Amino acid sequence: MRIAVLGTGEVGRRLATALVSLGHEVTLGSRTADHAGATAWAAEHRAAHGTFAGAASGAELVVNATGGLVSLAALEAVGAENLKGKVLLDVSNPLDPSEGMPPKVVTPEGGSLAEQIQRTFPEARVVKSLNTMANAVMVDPSRVPGDHCVFVCGDDPEAKAVVSGLLRSFGWPEARIVDLGDLSGARGAELLLPLWLRLYASLGTTDFNFAVLKA
Amino acid sequence: MRIAVLGTGEVGRRLATALVSLGHEVTLGSRTADHAGATAWAAEHRAAHGTFAGAASGAELVVNATGGLVSLAALEAVGAENLKGKVLLDVSNPLDPSEGMPPKVVTPEGGSLAEQIQRTFPEARVVKSLNTMANAVMVDPSRVPGDHCVFVCGDDPEAKAVVSGLLRSFGWPEARIVDLGDLSGARGAELLLPLWLRLYASLGTTDFNFAVLKA
Repeated sequence: MRIAVLGTGEVGRRLATALVSLGHEVTLGSRTADHAGATAWAAEHRAAHGTFAGAASGAELVVNATGGLVSLAALEAVGAENLKGKVLLDVSNPLDPSEGMPPKVVTPEGGSLAEQIQRTFPEARVVKSLNTMANAVMVDPSRVPGDHCVFVCGDDPEAKAVVSGLLRSFGWPEARIVDLGDLSGARGAELLLPLWLRLYASLGTTDFNFAVLKA
Repeated sequence: MRIAVLGTGEVGRRLATALVSLGHEVTLGSRTADHAGATAWAAEHRAAHGTFAGAASGAELVVNATGGLVSLAALEAVGAENLKGKVLLDVSNPLDPSEGMPPKVVTPEGGSLAEQIQRTFPEARVVKSLNTMANAVMVDPSRVPGDHCVFVCGDDPEAKAVVSGLLRSFGWPEARIVDLGDLSGARGAELLLPLWLRLYASLGTTDFNFAVLKA
């Protein structure tokens, strides 16, 4: 698949690298066409890089791996036309570190960043997933033993199915992909971050994840 | 132990009943001394009932099982003197159903209800726990198979140890009592509710719980 990964931070590079290994045609998108990190990543992985708009324009699927506080600006730079009809996998977290660590989650009043993105780009097919764990675990769930899970939600069932396929290719068994329903499920997923951050502090490792156990 | 359970709703009655079975001297506290539900509960369980203040005054440990939106008012009715030096186990969730279901979590800006309670009653020894699961699971973790967990946090290590002892008596093995550190850990625990509510909707049962798995 032709995939644009927006965001050259650790999360974006981790996802882009994993997608390249799986045989996808990946373009890493950044604010500027000559971003040093993106250029180096592309050279190392024999992949492409470009602006947010350039990366997304030729892609069939777009991954938002930008920081949650700048995601709307990055997607505005992509442009609605480049998102129209496409699956937009949103893995971002609206974390604000400006008042110190741990950062605060700043979800829009009563909603989630994912829903805000969907409202802003109504023709994109937004799916929220993978935001509730460390980036290394996203693409290699075997780092953490046991039946821990990944949440997925979105308003478009076909888009969710495409994302679930990607998740399976990362090693997530179907039974551990937990469908939270429509995109408003992203509220719970985004608000899980304060607990994640706290556990990170107490466990001293990012190699952990949540499981949902039921009777 | 002499324990006051504040709140005559399902959570309060469930905890009070379990504590009676464990041999504790329990008083169920409500707004009025002649609360019908509390009177009936006390008669059925050969336990006591009284006003919030009356219940707490003779207790060594106080459980806040009132609705999160009225907890501060209930504790004001108890009075700072009746909480002084006592372990105050806060199991409440600040859920606001006024705009429809699922209810919204309304934590104080940048903080948690538990911290707000601690600030309001600085001489109480507030411990947050048990708010992240259904009341039946709180007192009988075996309802859900597997190594799911209960979070505990608070500023007073001795108070946390007292609460952990109670949790063990409910059937929580030590290894599944996850210490989130000081009381600011309650932020993550309270913000877990939107995900809990969503899973409740999709799983169709309250017999589920979260686990934290690590490498």
